[in-house]
Amino acid sequence: MSTDELVFQIRKKNSFLCIGLDTDPERIPPHLLEEPDPVFAFNKAIVDATHHLCVAYKPNTAFYEANGIKGWESLSKTINYINAHYPEIFTIADAKRGDIGNTATMYAKAFFEDLKFDSVTVAPYMGRDSVEPFLNFKDKFTILLALTSNPGAFDFQTMQFDGKELYMQVLETALTYKNPDQLMFVVGATKAEFLKEIRRIVPKNFLLVPGVGAQGGSLEEVCKHGITDDIGLLINSSRGIIYASRDKDFAQAASAQATLLQQAMASEIKKIQSRA
Amino acid sequence: MSTDELVFQIRKKNSFLCIGLDTDPERIPPHLLEEPDPVFAFNKAIVDATHHLCVAYKPNTAFYEANGIKGWESLSKTINYINAHYPEIFTIADAKRGDIGNTATMYAKAFFEDLKFDSVTVAPYMGRDSVEPFLNFKDKFTILLALTSNPGAFDFQTMQFDGKELYMQVLETALTYKNPDQLMFVVGATKAEFLKEIRRIVPKNFLLVPGVGAQGGSLEEVCKHGITDDIGLLINSSRGIIYASRDKDFAQAASAQATLLQQAMASEIKKIQSRA
Repeated sequence: MSTDELVFQIRKKNSFLCIGLDTDPERIPPHLLEEPDPVFAFNKAIVDATHHLCVAYKPNTAFYEANGIKGWESLSKTINYINAHYPEIFTIADAKRGDIGNTATMYAKAFFEDLKFDSVTVAPYMGRDSVEPFLNFKDKFTILLALTSNPGAFDFQTMQFDGKELYMQVLETALTYKNPDQLMFVVGATKAEFLKEIRRIVPKNFLLVPGVGAQGGSLEEVCKHGITDDIGLLINSSRGIIYASRDKDFAQAASAQATLLQQAMASEIKKIQSRA
Repeated sequence: MSTDELVFQIRKKNSFLCIGLDTDPERIPPHLLEEPDPVFAFNKAIVDATHHLCVAYKPNTAFYEANGIKGWESLSKTINYINAHYPEIFTIADAKRGDIGNTATMYAKAFFEDLKFDSVTVAPYMGRDSVEPFLNFKDKFTILLALTSNPGAFDFQTMQFDGKELYMQVLETALTYKNPDQLMFVVGATKAEFLKEIRRIVPKNFLLVPGVGAQGGSLEEVCKHGITDDIGLLINSSRGIIYASRDKDFAQAASAQATLLQQAMASEIKKIQSRA
């Protein structure tokens, strides 16, 4: 998918919501456990009930790998289902991979070619030759971790070098990599005030923002500092939507929660339009 | 496996060799392609021919994931085969994972419980709550990336904060995490002179050292600066061993290459003993 197409979808749906499919077999409604593939059955119901409210889905691969080959099958069925039924959706493999050269190319092939995701999250620690192999794939996006939303983010990401924090150096250095227009960045919503500085370094690239809601970030604050004329944001919510109910109405409950976020996003998009 | 058991195996075999099972279907001997699972057939032959010369095997998970569910099956069969036939071997899932809290626990379960590896490589960028979930597993090891052996290592890992490089801060901070005796660190052999400084910070933890041979590092240099009274090193070689031949004699050729490294290691161990 191209950036233009993603922006088109955001404007059409009045939404920049990404739904995290962090599907844990122990947290899905008990009646689904009778299905041959409970995780896929859950994902399918969530996707069918929410696809018109969001522009992206983001399965975290850990939840699937934890179930071994069966989990890999659930992931594969989920992405195939989304691609077949809702090709307008932007898909993110939240895999946080990071390895070098040929090995990075292997990962890129796994997610871009075998599973046909539009994008994959990548860790920056190993530098250029761990990121560029992903950037070689046309019309695919590499979403680099910059400033994450967990407490451990302060262990290394905010260490200062000559007055510049590590995550800022990651943003600056990444822009010197091949095809930087295919880069997006993960920036946690719990540090919305940092977004102003981040936008100075990466004024245009899309930011994938976890941590709105469950982890305490405010949508309004994120938009205030992070939104661009082309929106430039994908706001992720996982548990708040997919686990809104454990009863038979789980998909409806997810849709209701997604609607609340979509409506809040619609009014943020309106602010931009009135600004223009 | 405990550290004591690993040290015991090293002394018994006079080897601290780790063989990287980075098995690429396009590089294995053509006659194996007739097998139902060529990658597993290749790994099995390599393991059968080399297990007495090494103390560890390290499949890089990217090579398996690139083949989708089939690849995941090959990985699963490989680790099961090693555990069943050579339980004295230390196994490393070279996955370079990094995610937070419950998600990190999911990855830990995938590698430690589902696949039954002894250890997994982990990226440090997300900090404490991305590493400690792995350290919660008793008798399992977390091998944290510190200084990798690729050119991109110099993008961020060697940036200086108050005269201290990022990788050194990673080592120091990691020692404050829960169960630091279950930590090992990845340190590339291409920077053997850095090992002296590294050993000042982590005098006892095992170091997993890639880059001897193919990437230009010298075994003698690495041992000079990095070896401890309990050896404290696992030296990895992948392509130099497993792709020594593409003919029917590939396993014999791998064994011959592994023997050369094992003999060089035996003489390094002898140096330590005469020093004591």
